[in-house]
Amino acid sequence: MRKGLGILGRLQKTPKWKKVEFDEIEYKAHTVKEILTEMKNISELIIDLAYSVIIFKDQEIAEEVKYLETRMDYLNYEIRMMAMLAARTREDAEQLTGILQIAEAAETISNAAGDIANLVDIGKGKADILPKVLKKADEKIFRIKISPKSSACNKLIGDLAVESETGMHIIAIRRGEFWIYDPGAETMLKAEDTLIVRGTEDGFDELKLFLTGKRRTLE
Amino acid sequence: MRKGLGILGRLQKTPKWKKVEFDEIEYKAHTVKEILTEMKNISELIIDLAYSVIIFKDQEIAEEVKYLETRMDYLNYEIRMMAMLAARTREDAEQLTGILQIAEAAETISNAAGDIANLVDIGKGKADILPKVLKKADEKIFRIKISPKSSACNKLIGDLAVESETGMHIIAIRRGEFWIYDPGAETMLKAEDTLIVRGTEDGFDELKLFLTGKRRTLE
Repeated sequence: MRKGLGILGRLQKTPKWKKVEFDEIEYKAHTVKEILTEMKNISELIIDLAYSVIIFKDQEIAEEVKYLETRMDYLNYEIRMMAMLAARTREDAEQLTGILQIAEAAETISNAAGDIANLVDIGKGKADILPKVLKKADEKIFRIKISPKSSACNKLIGDLAVESETGMHIIAIRRGEFWIYDPGAETMLKAEDTLIVRGTEDGFDELKLFLTGKRRTLE
Repeated sequence: MRKGLGILGRLQKTPKWKKVEFDEIEYKAHTVKEILTEMKNISELIIDLAYSVIIFKDQEIAEEVKYLETRMDYLNYEIRMMAMLAARTREDAEQLTGILQIAEAAETISNAAGDIANLVDIGKGKADILPKVLKKADEKIFRIKISPKSSACNKLIGDLAVESETGMHIIAIRRGEFWIYDPGAETMLKAEDTLIVRGTEDGFDELKLFLTGKRRTLE
């Protein structure tokens, strides 16, 4: 919408621009609303994942934490760029400052979660006591990819009744570069989706048979 | 267990002490395990609450965020004291350093959540756009206190089937100074408990009638 227009050019044009509609700002196919929502979602998810990494010394989930941390850095850069390009009046700038403060806090949270997850790498000395101190109950976070052979492909989570059949709660889905942070009954599962699920070992074993195509139904 | 014994006295005694069992360290009626677990729980809960504060301009939930932030400061102080008093060998110190890094990260998270929630106070300019940008669906976080007249008192959450009857999920309970961060089916509700619940306005209205004693059952 404003590509190729330098900031000086933009500033000269300022008086003619109207108050910014945040829903409509586009910059690399994102809106401010989309980016801030994704930053919020990441900051909520990454903490659970980070603790799970150190409690279960889980290198797979550690990879997802690193992925999310990198994504958060990118989004924070992106949203600052957008804010600078979007501010036209003093009022705009004030509103955008509020948005950038949330973004900053979300990135701080994600970095702190990254620090927690990194403790898994420092080897024997520091990290050994942590699972013992933090472990509770028998719930764990698992990661699993849906096989194209599974009959879960192209089904809705609600129709499969994943949670009532296995006790496993799907907390996020990664589809290539794209994340679904809070999947619900209406979310469709696709072949090659990576699911992040929470529950017991037993529940996971059942779900795994189904998602790898070794069993046709969950019942 | 070690009250009144100065650090120098403690250091002189070091060689005779055995490796610390973290589950057993007591200091003001807490164990390291309890404190770190509570810090982990707070860091997970406070983020959801903080976003809810700015999305719904909710001063009630803002109070709970402040309460949790203060509690986190206290716990971080407490756990540092305990770590210093507990370290006897180089190995102890290394393990305890890992624990303090988690504690530090948990407090960083809580402070960032506090920064988010504080944006609700800065008035018109900055905060007005935030609900519009972050609001999604129709779910909200509510706070409600159980009346001694309610038939919910001394009942288990599972027996009341709160979630299946109203769609409201109880995410935390404050009982005076004491918090229950992840209540389950086996958690008993008490008169004067403050519940933090997530769900729709309609579900909350129903639950409210029950918890204030205006309706005898949830069905």
